[in-house]
Amino acid sequence: MNNKIDTLKVGLGERSYDIIIGSDLLANAASFIAPVLPLKRVVIVTDENVSASGHLNKLMNSLKSEGIKYHPIILPAGESTKNFAQFEKLINEILALQVERNITIIALGGGVIGDITGFAASVILRGVNFIQIPTSLLAMVDSSVGGKTGINSLYGKNLIGSFYQPKLVLADIATLKTLSQREILAGYAEVVKYGLIGDADFFSLLESSNVDKNDSEHIKMLVHSCCLAKAKIVEQDERESGVRALLNLGHTFGHALEAEMGYDGRLLHGEAVSIGMVMAFQISHKMGLCDAIDVERVITHLSKVGLPVKTSDIEGFNSNAKDLLNHMYKDKKVQSGKLVFILVNGIGGAFIKKDVDADFVYEFLEEIL
Amino acid sequence: MNNKIDTLKVGLGERSYDIIIGSDLLANAASFIAPVLPLKRVVIVTDENVSASGHLNKLMNSLKSEGIKYHPIILPAGESTKNFAQFEKLINEILALQVERNITIIALGGGVIGDITGFAASVILRGVNFIQIPTSLLAMVDSSVGGKTGINSLYGKNLIGSFYQPKLVLADIATLKTLSQREILAGYAEVVKYGLIGDADFFSLLESSNVDKNDSEHIKMLVHSCCLAKAKIVEQDERESGVRALLNLGHTFGHALEAEMGYDGRLLHGEAVSIGMVMAFQISHKMGLCDAIDVERVITHLSKVGLPVKTSDIEGFNSNAKDLLNHMYKDKKVQSGKLVFILVNGIGGAFIKKDVDADFVYEFLEEIL
Repeated sequence: MNNKIDTLKVGLGERSYDIIIGSDLLANAASFIAPVLPLKRVVIVTDENVSASGHLNKLMNSLKSEGIKYHPIILPAGESTKNFAQFEKLINEILALQVERNITIIALGGGVIGDITGFAASVILRGVNFIQIPTSLLAMVDSSVGGKTGINSLYGKNLIGSFYQPKLVLADIATLKTLSQREILAGYAEVVKYGLIGDADFFSLLESSNVDKNDSEHIKMLVHSCCLAKAKIVEQDERESGVRALLNLGHTFGHALEAEMGYDGRLLHGEAVSIGMVMAFQISHKMGLCDAIDVERVITHLSKVGLPVKTSDIEGFNSNAKDLLNHMYKDKKVQSGKLVFILVNGIGGAFIKKDVDADFVYEFLEEIL
Repeated sequence: MNNKIDTLKVGLGERSYDIIIGSDLLANAASFIAPVLPLKRVVIVTDENVSASGHLNKLMNSLKSEGIKYHPIILPAGESTKNFAQFEKLINEILALQVERNITIIALGGGVIGDITGFAASVILRGVNFIQIPTSLLAMVDSSVGGKTGINSLYGKNLIGSFYQPKLVLADIATLKTLSQREILAGYAEVVKYGLIGDADFFSLLESSNVDKNDSEHIKMLVHSCCLAKAKIVEQDERESGVRALLNLGHTFGHALEAEMGYDGRLLHGEAVSIGMVMAFQISHKMGLCDAIDVERVITHLSKVGLPVKTSDIEGFNSNAKDLLNHMYKDKKVQSGKLVFILVNGIGGAFIKKDVDADFVYEFLEEIL
């Protein structure tokens, strides 16, 4: 395959950083990392699965060869790790190493590891350096770029966190080969999102392709396209006071579904987003904003690749409209008591709608559940 | 007395804010607060002592009269509140109110309340609006201005936190009348610090004055002078990459003393800073940097007002040089394994010294303990 390495830049003034995308980068990770280290000492935060898949060893070997001192910390895998107890434990483990402000913390893993590690890096000694090495498709195309960090609370997903940019994102496509097809698809839902938000041509291209983790060239193109799209949005609106909210397409519905299922692995974040995006198209259609044909295209493509598109696709789901609506009110996207949704006027035409009537949403949920 | 209200500005671009200083401002707090509220809904975080002293009621009455919805949360008083368990509890109590991003959180209290509340505000929904209403002299002259927030960890003071600026600081000098003389003096140590760092004339003025909480004019002048000095420093160096570190005069020693005493109220932060500043002058003298006469002036003034100036002034202190040095290595002010101290070449002449030899510090501590 083509071993070309792509470098994209997220331009945020003094908080700017590079996204490096390529295959088999981990074995030489130190050469990419060293230039952004103020001190040759790092803490690597990862999870049991990533460690078992050999990525941690590759990274440590590379760091060792460059004389960079490292301390690995291995967390349990899964969304349930993103809680307060694990957050406190992680911070204390890092502080126990007597770290200084010029330490760098590396998140090696998927979205969960990136989110909790980035949040920890943002508050340890009031902020230390942070590098993202995403090892899931979801993290590569979405969560590792843009500086959103956080943990979940009793009251909902990502309600506690910070905006904190990494110094570097290193995306090694080869790490995706160790993922299950289910995990790949969960990340793929976020890939589809970029098409649905603002790039109808990209969605058409996706419709004519398969999702094969071994087709590194195609996967790399997807990661590149999504990172480029995300970088542009983040550059315009780092702290989500406007356009960045479009990236939440499907997420208000999706977060409610995840909360109802209790983050126990039966419904992955990307799967919830897949169903949530379908709901966003359906409710937009019900409002007369979007043609039925576009709703069908979205459902057809997501179903074809193997993603869930309705709540009956979720094993063990038995919540009602009221349960879901309650969760939506706890989401960050409520303003002045009104629900804020990302709606669409078609594929590639997402927009922010700030005053969606709760009764209308309730009626919609009653219809589709 | 003169009821003039002083307004100072902390100029930090889009994060700029006013410091309003006056007497009996709480009864009209809402008129100062309303202009910076995106939504007429606030959470007030305070402690048992501040609540008992009537300040909370005054604030709530004022908010009520302006139609601003409020939710009070009352934490236990004292430094031990600045821990992870209280932090999690506070965040969950606030999230339980189903707050939105345009909520404003008010810290009504001393440094502990300001620090933990500001930290919570910085991470709830990735950051919500925050107002400081300091009710201790220490908070008015130091901790409420400049955006340092945080909690303590097993490993030391303020090791977990963020830089997060308030939208407003409202300093009502009248609230100080409810403080004990001991608390006033603890805050006064930080007042003296501004003179010792960079303003010999201000220190001379302090030498010729008394510390009387009922002399509102004098206290207001002190608060004004300190806030002005702090604002200038923070404007130059918001995230403490340089000159802001001067504000840590006496704090490396002081934090070690506090950690040894266990934050149980036997040694207040300002008292630790008082002893720490004396130590900074003494070690500077031992290095040949500062005349003995300046060391004596510092000790004389701090003793005269009633502040502790040596470890034997602390009830129950029995730590040794090794204990204290261990704590210093856990402080945020270590760089590349070297201790960073704020030293002085005289009163008003503080500077940053980055590579202080640990053996020398050990020898110094052995001599004075």
